[in-house]
Amino acid sequence: MEVYKNPNPEDWESLLKRPTASYEALEPVVSEVFGEVALKGDEALKRYTEKFDGISLSTIPVDESEIQAASKGVSEALKQAITQAKDQITAFHLAQKTPTITVENIPGVLCWQEKRPIEKVGIYIPGGSAPLFSTILMLAVPAQLAGCKEIILCTPPNKSGGVHPAILFTAALCGISMIFKVGGIQAIAAMTYGTPQIPKVYKIFGPGNQYVTVAKQWATKQGVAIDMPAGPSELLVMADQTANAAFIASDLLSQAEHGADSQVIFVTTYEPLLAQVAEELERQLKNLPRKEIAAQAIANSKSFFMPNKEAAVALVNSYAPEHYILCVSDEDYYLSNLTAAGSVFVGNYSPESAGDYASGTNHTLPTNGYARQYSGVNLDAFLKQMTFQKLTALGLEKLGETIELMAEAEGLEAHKNAVSIRLAAIKNNNKT
Amino acid sequence: MEVYKNPNPEDWESLLKRPTASYEALEPVVSEVFGEVALKGDEALKRYTEKFDGISLSTIPVDESEIQAASKGVSEALKQAITQAKDQITAFHLAQKTPTITVENIPGVLCWQEKRPIEKVGIYIPGGSAPLFSTILMLAVPAQLAGCKEIILCTPPNKSGGVHPAILFTAALCGISMIFKVGGIQAIAAMTYGTPQIPKVYKIFGPGNQYVTVAKQWATKQGVAIDMPAGPSELLVMADQTANAAFIASDLLSQAEHGADSQVIFVTTYEPLLAQVAEELERQLKNLPRKEIAAQAIANSKSFFMPNKEAAVALVNSYAPEHYILCVSDEDYYLSNLTAAGSVFVGNYSPESAGDYASGTNHTLPTNGYARQYSGVNLDAFLKQMTFQKLTALGLEKLGETIELMAEAEGLEAHKNAVSIRLAAIKNNNKT
Repeated sequence: MEVYKNPNPEDWESLLKRPTASYEALEPVVSEVFGEVALKGDEALKRYTEKFDGISLSTIPVDESEIQAASKGVSEALKQAITQAKDQITAFHLAQKTPTITVENIPGVLCWQEKRPIEKVGIYIPGGSAPLFSTILMLAVPAQLAGCKEIILCTPPNKSGGVHPAILFTAALCGISMIFKVGGIQAIAAMTYGTPQIPKVYKIFGPGNQYVTVAKQWATKQGVAIDMPAGPSELLVMADQTANAAFIASDLLSQAEHGADSQVIFVTTYEPLLAQVAEELERQLKNLPRKEIAAQAIANSKSFFMPNKEAAVALVNSYAPEHYILCVSDEDYYLSNLTAAGSVFVGNYSPESAGDYASGTNHTLPTNGYARQYSGVNLDAFLKQMTFQKLTALGLEKLGETIELMAEAEGLEAHKNAVSIRLAAIKNNNKT
Repeated sequence: MEVYKNPNPEDWESLLKRPTASYEALEPVVSEVFGEVALKGDEALKRYTEKFDGISLSTIPVDESEIQAASKGVSEALKQAITQAKDQITAFHLAQKTPTITVENIPGVLCWQEKRPIEKVGIYIPGGSAPLFSTILMLAVPAQLAGCKEIILCTPPNKSGGVHPAILFTAALCGISMIFKVGGIQAIAAMTYGTPQIPKVYKIFGPGNQYVTVAKQWATKQGVAIDMPAGPSELLVMADQTANAAFIASDLLSQAEHGADSQVIFVTTYEPLLAQVAEELERQLKNLPRKEIAAQAIANSKSFFMPNKEAAVALVNSYAPEHYILCVSDEDYYLSNLTAAGSVFVGNYSPESAGDYASGTNHTLPTNGYARQYSGVNLDAFLKQMTFQKLTALGLEKLGETIELMAEAEGLEAHKNAVSIRLAAIKNNNKT
């Protein structure tokens, strides 16, 4: 880790700068695949699956027998773990339900706000070495709680044309029956346009590699919404003299093992921790199966010593971390002065892993400083808010002149007239 | 209006298709302006203001004396109207505040969700013939209620280098003191990158022409969020035999006067209304100052007769209107079966104008079918949701094995280790 002691605030921005990946080079292939999927539907999906995943599929949907069989491929212990995690995620997201909001500030002018589900949503789960079944919980559970009518899942087939049993088990546990063996750009294109076999959706959720990232951006130009812009995962650990160097190192490594481009930042107000954590990192790193990846990420990571909590908080805020672990004695100060973070892990017994899997919070979070303006995935991500109003004749009489004056001042005479014509009718009715 | 009687559902999609504008032709100029503003800051802003707005400005910020003077340029009656509208909008958006959500499903595993303001937001208000001061209320009021620390407003100068007094008055009424005379692409670029005079923001709100629309899309590629994708404004009126043809025509015209590309749809289950509304349209159109614009929009608009309420609701849902006026006897049926609309106006005395100006609901709404997956601007648009968790040693003991099993099954050993190392320490502590 590079170490910086009390750096000048003017240098913070450049010190905390994330590597910016430019994906423009990928746009031609994304554009081509989208065009082909729009034109040729499932035939194009099969062709690209053969090309990119190296497997020739006879059918794209996962069938019932595969889901049945998958259950046998998952240990009872893992099933129980997934079920406990699902219960926790359900409890936390269910608590996010909001009631209808009703305001009648002027009698006869009733306004209300209701949330209704996004009817059709798509979940993308990447393939690769590890089956990311935990992400299914994070997306399917709130989608179900929101009441989304059609929830589909796309994931690339493995080399033998199947899907990892833990993915199928988790999807089935979450009540998802429409699972399609298609990955990468072609999966995002299929959910964007719809094909004979894969329904079009209104919003696409889920992680992916750089191709999927560009494909999701592309989808937004075709009228589909996405969960949030993506970037490499990040962790910032803030610690003082009450923290545990071994715990901190284990957390930094859990972030580092995601990929060589993972962002790992360590900040402390207690200078001796710098060396203690560095030592622990070295010690723990040796035993990790993904040590090459983790070592690269750690080499690119940064440690900061800050002279006081005011400076430490300011540094954290200027980074706006996706994951933020806080191991300090004065938790209240740090929490109340925090302006932006995706998810915060407070105290020595709250590793990031807890939120990644099972505490109940969502692990789909804003990276790349987007915590300044984006929320992580939550129940509302699967709902849209709609407003309603009902005015009575009396209500319109009380508000009508205000509307007329404003419409006239904006030069919108027909807007004014829609009120005037009603007020005249009310007056006429009152006379008779 | 083109009239369709009980069209085949297979044809709905094409009948209800919005004209899709492709803005790719505008990308080169947007890219150029962004590049110049990034490089040359305020000097570029002045240069483009001279080029596009035809005015050479000495200073970009509106100064205090201009704001003072503006107050005299607005009639007392209009001031009162704007103030009443502000009160209504404040009441409705204040009611949208949500409390911190706390869940402790397993003792010792405490998770909570809080909303915190987006610190820096930018509001764009177009220039042109009409001063859209009402949009300032719709954006600045919730921004203030959310607690955004820095709220800036950009609007193009008029030919004499000033800003319409109603805009300055409304901005001041909403507590906005940072107002900049800059419009179009260059304004969006300035808020995206920041210049010596104009601060960078994290999210940009507000309407605009096609250049502003493309510039806002461009801004999202530079890490800034925007309120929502834009398209021409739309209204769908649904009416049965209890509706008033003159009121309906006035509403359709209030939408039509926005521009020749405005989308106006009329749906009824009561066939005689088709002719009655057409007649009223013709009668009312004559007296409008913007009749040429409105006549063009009406000529492109469509009327539908649907044989029953089931078919009518299905047609409305397949359109997902931005504004939806509902004048029917069975309101409950229509409301409860509605799946997507930006804002709904219920009954004969709820013209769209009410929500455009003063009832309290927001008028920044999803167009182009985006009501299927986007919310209109609301209080939450100025907040981001953050999650927190604090586990005790006991809590981690109860959840730890689940996390370990899941992390291991996903092949993320360091994630598992962050738990194992803590569980081992807890065990050790318990022994001693």
